[in-house]
Amino acid sequence: MNHDKMVISFPDGSEKSYLKGSTLGDIAQSISPGLKKKSVVGRVNGSLYDMQRPINSNAEIELFPLHSSEGLEVMRHTAAHIMAQAVKRLFGSARLGVGPVVENGFYYDIDTDQSISKDDLSKIEKEMRNIVAENLFIKRELVSRDEAESIFSNDHLKLELLKKIPREEDVSIYKQGEFIDLCRGPHLPSTKLLKAFSLTNISGAYWLGNNDNQMLQRIYGVAFSTKKELNEYFHFVEEAKKRDHRKLGKQLELFMFSDEAPGMPFYLSNGQVIRNELEAFLRSLQESFNYKEVKTPLMMNQRLWEQSGHWNHYKDNMYFSEVDQQHFALKPMNCPGHMLIFKDRLRSYRDLPIRMAEFGQVHRHEFSGALNGLLRVRSFCQDDAHIFVTPHQIEGEITSALQLIDDVYRTFGFNYEIELSTRPEKSMGGPGLWDQAEDALKNVLDKLGYDFRVNEGDGAFYGPKIDIHIKDALNRSHQCATMQLDFQMPEKFDLEYINEHNEKVRPVVIHRAVFGSLDRFLGILIEHYRGAFPTWLAPVQVKILPVSNDVHKEYSDQVMNRLKQEGIRVEKDSREEKIGYKIRETQINKTPFILVLGDKEVEKGCVNVRSYGDKATKDMGLDEFVTSIKQSIVNKDLLE
Amino acid sequence: MNHDKMVISFPDGSEKSYLKGSTLGDIAQSISPGLKKKSVVGRVNGSLYDMQRPINSNAEIELFPLHSSEGLEVMRHTAAHIMAQAVKRLFGSARLGVGPVVENGFYYDIDTDQSISKDDLSKIEKEMRNIVAENLFIKRELVSRDEAESIFSNDHLKLELLKKIPREEDVSIYKQGEFIDLCRGPHLPSTKLLKAFSLTNISGAYWLGNNDNQMLQRIYGVAFSTKKELNEYFHFVEEAKKRDHRKLGKQLELFMFSDEAPGMPFYLSNGQVIRNELEAFLRSLQESFNYKEVKTPLMMNQRLWEQSGHWNHYKDNMYFSEVDQQHFALKPMNCPGHMLIFKDRLRSYRDLPIRMAEFGQVHRHEFSGALNGLLRVRSFCQDDAHIFVTPHQIEGEITSALQLIDDVYRTFGFNYEIELSTRPEKSMGGPGLWDQAEDALKNVLDKLGYDFRVNEGDGAFYGPKIDIHIKDALNRSHQCATMQLDFQMPEKFDLEYINEHNEKVRPVVIHRAVFGSLDRFLGILIEHYRGAFPTWLAPVQVKILPVSNDVHKEYSDQVMNRLKQEGIRVEKDSREEKIGYKIRETQINKTPFILVLGDKEVEKGCVNVRSYGDKATKDMGLDEFVTSIKQSIVNKDLLE
Repeated sequence: MNHDKMVISFPDGSEKSYLKGSTLGDIAQSISPGLKKKSVVGRVNGSLYDMQRPINSNAEIELFPLHSSEGLEVMRHTAAHIMAQAVKRLFGSARLGVGPVVENGFYYDIDTDQSISKDDLSKIEKEMRNIVAENLFIKRELVSRDEAESIFSNDHLKLELLKKIPREEDVSIYKQGEFIDLCRGPHLPSTKLLKAFSLTNISGAYWLGNNDNQMLQRIYGVAFSTKKELNEYFHFVEEAKKRDHRKLGKQLELFMFSDEAPGMPFYLSNGQVIRNELEAFLRSLQESFNYKEVKTPLMMNQRLWEQSGHWNHYKDNMYFSEVDQQHFALKPMNCPGHMLIFKDRLRSYRDLPIRMAEFGQVHRHEFSGALNGLLRVRSFCQDDAHIFVTPHQIEGEITSALQLIDDVYRTFGFNYEIELSTRPEKSMGGPGLWDQAEDALKNVLDKLGYDFRVNEGDGAFYGPKIDIHIKDALNRSHQCATMQLDFQMPEKFDLEYINEHNEKVRPVVIHRAVFGSLDRFLGILIEHYRGAFPTWLAPVQVKILPVSNDVHKEYSDQVMNRLKQEGIRVEKDSREEKIGYKIRETQINKTPFILVLGDKEVEKGCVNVRSYGDKATKDMGLDEFVTSIKQSIVNKDLLE
Repeated sequence: MNHDKMVISFPDGSEKSYLKGSTLGDIAQSISPGLKKKSVVGRVNGSLYDMQRPINSNAEIELFPLHSSEGLEVMRHTAAHIMAQAVKRLFGSARLGVGPVVENGFYYDIDTDQSISKDDLSKIEKEMRNIVAENLFIKRELVSRDEAESIFSNDHLKLELLKKIPREEDVSIYKQGEFIDLCRGPHLPSTKLLKAFSLTNISGAYWLGNNDNQMLQRIYGVAFSTKKELNEYFHFVEEAKKRDHRKLGKQLELFMFSDEAPGMPFYLSNGQVIRNELEAFLRSLQESFNYKEVKTPLMMNQRLWEQSGHWNHYKDNMYFSEVDQQHFALKPMNCPGHMLIFKDRLRSYRDLPIRMAEFGQVHRHEFSGALNGLLRVRSFCQDDAHIFVTPHQIEGEITSALQLIDDVYRTFGFNYEIELSTRPEKSMGGPGLWDQAEDALKNVLDKLGYDFRVNEGDGAFYGPKIDIHIKDALNRSHQCATMQLDFQMPEKFDLEYINEHNEKVRPVVIHRAVFGSLDRFLGILIEHYRGAFPTWLAPVQVKILPVSNDVHKEYSDQVMNRLKQEGIRVEKDSREEKIGYKIRETQINKTPFILVLGDKEVEKGCVNVRSYGDKATKDMGLDEFVTSIKQSIVNKDLLE
């Protein structure tokens, strides 16, 4: 083989010989000009390379277009450089800190004499568009440390970064037009490839995140491969803002927080109605799946948590209390309590499976910075169940648990994805048991026709598990339900049952949750429904608005009492306000049905119905309305 | 007036002159021989006197028959002496300690060389009956300390007691036949008046309750004024034993306790079914009374408890936990959380009354010795409500709360008594407010036609209150419901609402509970119903027993599924056991309905119904049975 040549391997396994020093650009061009045009970065033996960086030895390569995740990451990095270049052009004194990629975009920390305001962002964006139009070639160069120090001699922040680069590493700089930056790269081949971006915010940030250091200005931007994606992103952000459960929770009077109990929600009556409905719904479903509900104490002896292993792994997140010179802990999980109930009497194989469920209030400490409305709290209600089974019952129980979960999620209109995590390197329980258990889980998922992802080796050390991720209305993913086999807990608690041959043997425990946390699930629901709950969940299902509080009082009361008797949550608005105002206010509160009652309705004995989201109103007989709303509540219909 | 005479005043206000030194016996005899015969003890200027004790100056007197509480107390005291006399006759070496009266009876602590066994009790009883038959006159004598020391020179325990009598006090001894005891008295005139007694137990007891002292033998007995009462007492004891909720809780698998969480119940599924029914029942009633349910955190900052005053008055019963260098406490009450919700927004008089309810889990420390099944626990669910009112709304709200309470108690078949406690000496809130509030409470009770007892000056310092005492099936009284006006909490939390004149004014708070503690109420219910719960509460409402598991399987399953669909809690017993055995076992578990299904039932498509407590069975069509049991559940019928 020619010493000037090297062998390049492609993802499809094919190989081709090139002159050493060829770039990804050369290689792409050799295949097709279209490929070269499309590709913005590549992977060479596992590292990302600029299109123009020479390759000097045999290599496996892969090319990426702009819209790939690799392409997007590199484009966002280049966008940070373009922004920095624009700032330098506009604010001559600017000195640069770091400019990394973040989710959907980038930022750059900048030291300026002049303060940059939010109003300056459009000016900077305009200059960035100029730089894009200038179609500047972006070039990587390796320089010596001395050269680098000389290039950045006026940039104290870059000099500091330079010192952090290990001696044995190359120092690379990137140039585009008059702009030079100290940077590992890689970058786009040219500034013109930045298609769709926007600067979103500016804030203060300590140099290197250390609040002993000087305060810099951090400018945030987002960038996508197309204008369409950028617009979708802004739409998503707007939607997410409108749906923010903390905002809606306040507006709809669902819950509140207090400094007296950080991270522990106070449910106002509207929120509590929904919680009670969620609990009643799952309770009733669990009954039909033959679960048995129990209730265990909130506080138990520390030695129990030592026995269960929670003490070792979880004590930093637990709350403790001393009682009569003994140490107690608030439960962070319900498992140990359920184990004690199992052990309370002798169990036979005839008793299994035992499906023990609890709506258990658990306490888990989180740093105050980590708290986030109902999505991250310090105390929540877990819809926990432990199913005690023989190994042969695993498949049947997982099947039925998946059916229960499917029933629940379909009711709320959630799609979901399934992940199966298998035996990790360090694990307990014999390989036979693991194989049997993993086969059972796979069989069930196959039989039920589920697509699922296998996370090999990602199970807990105590058993394999199935996690379920729901997709909300904004297509955001939330892990809620879980089914975890546990071979360890039965050992730790020395659980036994008498089998068919009159021998004492260990059961397997399945941990199962559907909502996961009732509180977090409610938070997700608020955002999923944008506060417009289906009728069965709505705190107020029907609002009655008499056209005149005097004239139509009797009929309004009559309608209200009838609805109350039928078990419908109904309120009447008798304030001295204009009917139009009342209608608008009720719509803002997202009440599923508004009944406006005036002369016509009194005369005909009917109701004028305004369904949430419908502009048109509908006249209905009272009986007809009652039948229809009750049906919708029983069916748990989603709003249209 | 003659110096030998004294004036005796009678309870009816009349007065009469007697010779000094006359006894109550003499005085009774002077009125009628019948009165003398009937009276066993009397009160002289406030102190109880033997019938034979001389009176030496003017006095107000009152005579008591055997069946009065004073008569019974004295009789039980004399019974202790008679028992001690019998023991001395049977066990010559016996030395006596103390022999006080206790509820329903008495005991005596005795030092013997020989150990007295339970088998000896009938022998002692027999000797007691001899002493009663001997009709020994019981005589009080005053002696000097030296005389007393000489009389009891062989009785080391009595000598110790003698030392404890203050120097300035008289030393009295009582004699009956050969028996002498150091005793304050008073006693019956003669041993023959002890009519109905029984020795019940013997146990060890440290001298004077100090476990550094020697161990004595304590013999317990009970005594009543008639044989009938004695028999009733034993019947009550037997009944109470059968009804013991701890025993039934285990037998019916309602709840358990564990050393890992002393005083904190674990509800097994049967118990949890009942808890859920109780909660759902009250929740639904509260909805119809326009309560709004909330849920507040279990743990709140210590400063909140300092503000509420709980810290000062209740900290020894509270559990604490340190979080991020701040002190938090588990809530012992729900009030402060509700106050924070009230304060969360500006309130107007139009919003009042606000009826804020919570099923709140509270934690209150109790000494382990004080714990008693579900009746005294360390953590329980309080059905708490706080009603925020203007002073003018007090009457209306108390009326409606009383109606709610009446609805609840009548549903369980409880009679109840009402006590009104009024302004104590130390109180807060102006006298005007107190008068208005007390008048409101009285008015309501009068208007609703309730008999009630007034406990003058027994209200809390923060407001007057109404307590309600229910009577269970054994006529035992339990205080459960309470309604307390509170003028203080609104001050402490600076609560305000805007009144009609646009001024900020304080609301009044009414604390209200119906069950009080859901856990304790369940304990009371278990004993009240002797575990035989009305159908709506029964953990299993219907048990299906196929005559043959094979032959009648299909029909049994068909009946079971139908009942399940109708929301009835049903189980099928398919064990390989004789049908008679299964019926007996189901009856022991107090299941309201047993359906035995055999050839005849399959053929006719009917069910053979055995109601709890009924010997006869009844053939019913399945539809007919479903209609009847559903009706009984909806009506919350009591068992017959």
